Amino acid sequence: MSFLDEVPWNGDGLIAAVAQDAKSGRVLTVAWMNREALQQTAETQRAVYWSRSRQRLWRKGEESGHVQRVKSIRLDCDEDVVLLEVEQAGGIACHTGRHSCFFQKLDGGKWVVTDPVLKDPAEIYKSSKR
Amino acid sequence: MSFLDEVPWNGDGLIAAVAQDAKSGRVLTVAWMNREALQQTAETQRAVYWSRSRQRLWRKGEESGHVQRVKSIRLDCDEDVVLLEVEQAGGIACHTGRHSCFFQKLDGGKWVVTDPVLKDPAEIYKSSKR
Repeated sequence: MSFLDEVPWNGDGLIAAVAQDAKSGRVLTVAWMNREALQQTAETQRAVYWSRSRQRLWRKGEESGHVQRVKSIRLDCDEDVVLLEVEQAGGIACHTGRHSCFFQKLDGGKWVVTDPVLKDPAEIYKSSKR
Repeated sequence: MSFLDEVPWNGDGLIAAVAQDAKSGRVLTVAWMNREALQQTAETQRAVYWSRSRQRLWRKGEESGHVQRVKSIRLDCDEDVVLLEVEQAGGIACHTGRHSCFFQKLDGGKWVVTDPVLKDPAEIYKSSKR
């Protein structure tokens, strides 16, 4: 039996996937995987997700170059989530050009942006060949 | 406008919530919050979730004593997830008695348990007054 068979895929055939930076320890992204995405992630050691909006496999970094090299893959006890420990290329995981997608922090009853934009998104995506 | 109004609650009125240990850096749990849970979490600085199975508020640690004291609350760019930085009472977040719920790691094509049980669950829950 494959490790893929032990994953309790949800009604849409997906599982949530949290990516954590191996260096900074920051939680970078939360996305989704289908069976093929998890299989390819394990085989290639690069994060591959399932894009629900585009309904296709999404090789993280395919446009931006900001790939996630996978150091470990974990599964939780019952919440149906996988956790990737990754080396984040460019140190940028978020499409806004920030290190982490979790760049808003609750402070005094307001969401406050705490992380700097490391690279202009226009710059990140202009060289896309896709 | 409350910070609660800026959260893109899903069709069930929920948002996913990742909890990360402030000390170990480990991702501990992934659970759900409704509006009231997030409000109470922010007000009391203790993690309060929405139990989908029990359909009621779940004050993390109410039975086990393993409460999560909240140091920060973050929101991601568009994936509809909050991230809590917590101090985990007892160092045990998982109902199996382990530090983290992510105690299974993919190794050689198999999920392998990597984390020790720190306290017998029968011991954790026997003193429950609920």
